[in-house]
Amino acid sequence: MSSTCFDRIAELVTNRRELGDGSPLGLRRDAAVVVEDGEVVWVGDAGAAPATDDHRDLTGRCVLPAFVDSHSHLVFGGERVGEFAARMSGRAYTAGGIRTTIAATRAAPVEELRRRAGLLLAEMRRQGTGVVEIKSGYGAEVATERRSLEVAGELTAETTYLGAHVMGPEFADDPAGYVTLVTGEMLAACAPLARWVDVFVEDGAFDGDQARAILRAGAERGLGARVHANQLGPGPGVQVACEVGAASADHCTHLDARDVAALADSGTVATLVPGAEFSTRSPVYADGRRLMAAGVTVALATDCNPGTSYTTSMPFVIALAVRECGLTPSEAVWAATAGSAAALRREDVGHLGLGAAAWLSVLDAPSHQYLAYRPGVPLARLLTAPEGVTARAPGVGGPGSASQVASR
Amino acid sequence: MSSTCFDRIAELVTNRRELGDGSPLGLRRDAAVVVEDGEVVWVGDAGAAPATDDHRDLTGRCVLPAFVDSHSHLVFGGERVGEFAARMSGRAYTAGGIRTTIAATRAAPVEELRRRAGLLLAEMRRQGTGVVEIKSGYGAEVATERRSLEVAGELTAETTYLGAHVMGPEFADDPAGYVTLVTGEMLAACAPLARWVDVFVEDGAFDGDQARAILRAGAERGLGARVHANQLGPGPGVQVACEVGAASADHCTHLDARDVAALADSGTVATLVPGAEFSTRSPVYADGRRLMAAGVTVALATDCNPGTSYTTSMPFVIALAVRECGLTPSEAVWAATAGSAAALRREDVGHLGLGAAAWLSVLDAPSHQYLAYRPGVPLARLLTAPEGVTARAPGVGGPGSASQVASR
Repeated sequence: MSSTCFDRIAELVTNRRELGDGSPLGLRRDAAVVVEDGEVVWVGDAGAAPATDDHRDLTGRCVLPAFVDSHSHLVFGGERVGEFAARMSGRAYTAGGIRTTIAATRAAPVEELRRRAGLLLAEMRRQGTGVVEIKSGYGAEVATERRSLEVAGELTAETTYLGAHVMGPEFADDPAGYVTLVTGEMLAACAPLARWVDVFVEDGAFDGDQARAILRAGAERGLGARVHANQLGPGPGVQVACEVGAASADHCTHLDARDVAALADSGTVATLVPGAEFSTRSPVYADGRRLMAAGVTVALATDCNPGTSYTTSMPFVIALAVRECGLTPSEAVWAATAGSAAALRREDVGHLGLGAAAWLSVLDAPSHQYLAYRPGVPLARLLTAPEGVTARAPGVGGPGSASQVASR
Repeated sequence: MSSTCFDRIAELVTNRRELGDGSPLGLRRDAAVVVEDGEVVWVGDAGAAPATDDHRDLTGRCVLPAFVDSHSHLVFGGERVGEFAARMSGRAYTAGGIRTTIAATRAAPVEELRRRAGLLLAEMRRQGTGVVEIKSGYGAEVATERRSLEVAGELTAETTYLGAHVMGPEFADDPAGYVTLVTGEMLAACAPLARWVDVFVEDGAFDGDQARAILRAGAERGLGARVHANQLGPGPGVQVACEVGAASADHCTHLDARDVAALADSGTVATLVPGAEFSTRSPVYADGRRLMAAGVTVALATDCNPGTSYTTSMPFVIALAVRECGLTPSEAVWAATAGSAAALRREDVGHLGLGAAAWLSVLDAPSHQYLAYRPGVPLARLLTAPEGVTARAPGVGGPGSASQVASR
């Protein structure tokens, strides 16, 4: 195996207070980091690293842990650009929303699901994202949910069974029957392929008791819990998430004081997905400032999906979280790396401490604050992944050059 | 000279009703376009083009006129990331704002101004932008204004003399003296290097009468008028712009009914720059819907500058204009191409009619609506420029590949 030194980094974000300036981001100016056998093995001053097989000069650049995208729906058939354009044009749109995607996903050959999810993952990687969580949820039937998780599992270890995304179309008059399916036959088929179980708790989707039953059944099969919580209005999602010890409550747009207190008193991370609020023209965004003030651990994710947030860009999400959710530029970068790693209960990613997996990204900018300062600009790209280092020298070419990083 | 056929385009945006579906975007499905000697020479159906020297297959892609960025401030020294981070963190920031940039620009060697402006222009090109307007305005003294325009003129024909950006720091107690300078010695030095004259009309900057004097003096030197109008509050900017027949009134965030009527009754384009409203956390965005409804010609631009809108991304601006200014996805794409060409009174760009300059961009998506549907994702890149065609085949590599297009 080979070792590489990334040297003369203008600003290194370690997310380890003790490795840097004592702040949560653990910043080091004029720094170097050494990666060997897919792990971070040394962090220190520029020019001071031990000898390595390869050496890269990153003068003027910021290096940070690759973004962790802890909430995505990458496995689906079809797209919904017409629905989006109608919504943004103020026109009524009577087509099926998520049901359109369910029909298209059921109909799609597995090769097509694999090809498209792979393209989206590659697009994420070109923008600086490393580890990605991928959910099922557009099957709403046993075979398609299982197939979706097979595809997800080829792309990531962070697979989530979301049979409880919406009620299956065949169960419009029998919600209890659908919950029985989700906790029974569908779970049995999907659990071996998943690390997590997730439920969309919302009026019109699943209520608190249904969610408890689904998460409990998942836990009995060894699946960790995640919850789509309080997206469209107040509801029991956050309470259920905290009660069952979910790793994360996602969305958190409509919270009351009790919800914020529950998050603060639990180990449950609040994952904000402002891309969804942007693309649905939500009248409000999640109040990240309030959560930070209460001591809640906050994460950021794209929620990438074809209906309500078709972005793969963590830099865009960071800029939105600063503009709309009240995070500072530094808090947003922490939330998109260390925070989202916590939302996946991963200790090997989201930081650059010794032994961390070698997921590093680089910015075409001298500090992490540029991610919010320069919104929309493709500044970030993956620098190295545990499986291998990009062949191309950093600094040559544009944001597309990370496409040479092998996908997992 | 050589000819190239871009063939099997999923959707071609011509911005010529008669070349397409009769809509303002003049859309053609399954189309081809031929470029020769830096001009569009043929538009028609896929597979039907005359023989050319080169042939590119763009199956599944949307091709459109390269974005026109009709409002930018690319020539400056220094950056203001600390000011931005402080503003976004709710902290008071007592440093100098624009005066910081004036001091840094005055102090910067011309090579440094040239290098940095060139990098920003290249960044724009990598994101699908063709023609760019570039202003002076960070000199506020004769030598630096002239030097800024020299740099701008190396990068674009659309140079704008903005001596009237803010009052020169040396004229804090003598605004009339500064206007005399701007309309006298500074204008004489700058006019030969500029196509346009611009004034920032706002409380604390220049009032209506000062603006009239400056625009009139510019006109006497052959400069077309542009105005920074109604950005921070109500004011006379739009009225002055329409009165003098300015090509464009830019910002237009705070308009009353009289302003909208004046724009509708004039040939003055309203150029919206929602990136500035995003990055300053403006409580309101320009109401593009209201302007469209009144029949005003609307343009979009980045306003790229280091203080209030440090984005180079027209796709980001399009997504914001849809989310926040009420344009439809189609209207926003028109405004970012044909609209901003109109704001520069350019008939050779912003469309793909016969004889148009060969500024074409391509999306990694099948329709123009994806620019709003997939916010933050680097979908667009320059496909060809009048000076030459990219050496690299479209579809290979990521958004960075347009860096191979020669800069003007």
